[in-house]
Amino acid sequence: MALKGFQFSVVEAAIKKPGRKDLALICCEAPAVAAAVFTTNKVKAAPVLLSAERITGGRAQALVVNSGNANACTGSQGMQDARETTRLVAEGLGIAPELVQVCSTGVIGVPLPMERLSAAIPGLLAGRGNAGLDDLAAAIMTTDTFPKAVTRSGSIGGVSYTVAGVAKGAGMIMPNMATMLSFILTDAAVDPALVDQLFRSGIERSFNAITIDGDTSTNDTCLLLANGAAGTPVIRPVTAEAEQFAQLLDEVLLELAKLIVKDGEGATKFVEIRIRGAVSDADAKRAALAVANSSLVKTAFFGQDANWGRIFAAVGYSGSAVDPDRLALWFDEVCMAQNGVFAGGDAEARGTEVLRQKEFTVTVDLGLGEGNATVYTSDLSHEYVSINADYRT
Amino acid sequence: MALKGFQFSVVEAAIKKPGRKDLALICCEAPAVAAAVFTTNKVKAAPVLLSAERITGGRAQALVVNSGNANACTGSQGMQDARETTRLVAEGLGIAPELVQVCSTGVIGVPLPMERLSAAIPGLLAGRGNAGLDDLAAAIMTTDTFPKAVTRSGSIGGVSYTVAGVAKGAGMIMPNMATMLSFILTDAAVDPALVDQLFRSGIERSFNAITIDGDTSTNDTCLLLANGAAGTPVIRPVTAEAEQFAQLLDEVLLELAKLIVKDGEGATKFVEIRIRGAVSDADAKRAALAVANSSLVKTAFFGQDANWGRIFAAVGYSGSAVDPDRLALWFDEVCMAQNGVFAGGDAEARGTEVLRQKEFTVTVDLGLGEGNATVYTSDLSHEYVSINADYRT
Repeated sequence: MALKGFQFSVVEAAIKKPGRKDLALICCEAPAVAAAVFTTNKVKAAPVLLSAERITGGRAQALVVNSGNANACTGSQGMQDARETTRLVAEGLGIAPELVQVCSTGVIGVPLPMERLSAAIPGLLAGRGNAGLDDLAAAIMTTDTFPKAVTRSGSIGGVSYTVAGVAKGAGMIMPNMATMLSFILTDAAVDPALVDQLFRSGIERSFNAITIDGDTSTNDTCLLLANGAAGTPVIRPVTAEAEQFAQLLDEVLLELAKLIVKDGEGATKFVEIRIRGAVSDADAKRAALAVANSSLVKTAFFGQDANWGRIFAAVGYSGSAVDPDRLALWFDEVCMAQNGVFAGGDAEARGTEVLRQKEFTVTVDLGLGEGNATVYTSDLSHEYVSINADYRT
Repeated sequence: MALKGFQFSVVEAAIKKPGRKDLALICCEAPAVAAAVFTTNKVKAAPVLLSAERITGGRAQALVVNSGNANACTGSQGMQDARETTRLVAEGLGIAPELVQVCSTGVIGVPLPMERLSAAIPGLLAGRGNAGLDDLAAAIMTTDTFPKAVTRSGSIGGVSYTVAGVAKGAGMIMPNMATMLSFILTDAAVDPALVDQLFRSGIERSFNAITIDGDTSTNDTCLLLANGAAGTPVIRPVTAEAEQFAQLLDEVLLELAKLIVKDGEGATKFVEIRIRGAVSDADAKRAALAVANSSLVKTAFFGQDANWGRIFAAVGYSGSAVDPDRLALWFDEVCMAQNGVFAGGDAEARGTEVLRQKEFTVTVDLGLGEGNATVYTSDLSHEYVSINADYRT
């Protein structure tokens, strides 16, 4: 793998049930520059609380992550289990536990099966280097139907470096932040303050711009590690190198975010919602999220029904400033409505054609100002209901 | 009918398709005291705009209402059509158009079929007195599966009076206000300021305390007419009579609101969400609505899965003040979690039993203060997706 200085390992700990590798490790040879963004949910899982406490140092050397159990709503036992997991990993690596981040994803409210998890850690440590990015992406899946990994490369003064990322999503997906878990790894050397700033702004336009079901998880974590192993000079703020790095990082983040939507629980459509002409960007995002989260809009997408009126209704209750007589709407390039009313002609037939595609864009012009925003969403299908009605069984 | 001084009429105007009575009229012999609450959606249907303008006088004598077409997102044509409908009714009744309220419910973005609607009005006027409350309730249905009508009676000094109401709901149901259409009729004589105040506070605990899909409609209207035809003395504020009237009104409103949830699109469960121990009533309502609107919680209800963790997650992102370690949760009388963690024992089996019922209560104690709120919701089923994927076809 082009990505230097990171080692991966995945093993089966049978966290929820046997038959798949559900415990993973990422580690570096030395502490890496680390940045992280966590869920804004006030009910935070134990690993989120522990990792957030540790990331304040701005350094991390290893990450241990399990799928199948979120270790959320598990009280002091959950905190103890998260600590114990990192202690075992730190001991095996001969590093301080404070340098070990921990993530969990899966069912809420059930204690971690610590006996099976602890028993699997020696194998996890011994297996370092035996797994690749795709194995890592597969190990963190829950109801995801495919592993999500993205890689981009750049170079600085002839020294090439890589920005890679994995993510898992599927359900309980809604900004702040959106993805349940994503890990971004780079072997570039980056100024810590710069990486933190670029990471946060990139997330705003990627993971915080997607929604599947409007539910914000208790475990959302996006972690970035920059270990400098590629041998690049340190990337500093306001330089051409920082610009290139920011672009690669943004591409990885956005691509992963889109993959999460495409793999949304039961999703049959990938829809880009663009709002323009709002009085502010914040207002535009408010309107875009209301459209993207509306059950009625999403079921209409599933039914391939060009029901633009439901989109105007969602914009109308979004809280964004709206003048109904100025609203215009397009499905891809087909204008469905202008000045708040149906555009007429063959718009219905052509709009329906657009909605028959697997991917399309909905653009709403509020006609009020310069504010704009883009969010990505899926439809609401029978399959979503099936998956979530039976999730724990 | 016990309700005095109101005449109803229903006819078929074939607004969306032929085969059912979809145009209705309510009228009084003289102007009645009138109060109304309309949608807070900024995209308001033409009949909402026209009725809101007219209700400022506090009087109304007639209401004309159609189902099958919402006359929303129809621009100036829509306003013209709403005016013309009321003009025809006013002319036939020999009253001022300003005394005629108008409501529409159905598909958004399609102009009213005015030719068919106008042609049906003479028959509508001629048929006055031929229909009852149930016919009225049936005429305003869209995807509703049963008509919703509720009647209560009281008496003042030996003079009996009635408070009756009809409502239609089914989808695009979310507070502010919730129901698409509801009409409350009483033959009691009530002080106009008192009736307005009682009506608004009653709605807060009924129609504004239900949610099916979190979508606020463009057409929500709740209208009350008090015509005094029963011959009661005028009910004045701060009297025993006002208290009795308020109770009857509240019962009618709450019963109608609950019927709307029971007939929610695809609903298989009726769930009462009670939040207590919040820092304020407003916080409690915020938490209750987040739970009631969570797609993940609602699909778990559908799947009869006692997944209390998803409810804690929804409370956590609701914006309400929350201390995760103080959360407790019950399904009916079964305690599922305390101090933020699983209650243990046979809670899982007993909680699952509760969720197998058609109706149950979810109680969450935030353990912080005295605030509480109750909202009513349904589950999210395959049938909801089917109904809304194919709504316009």
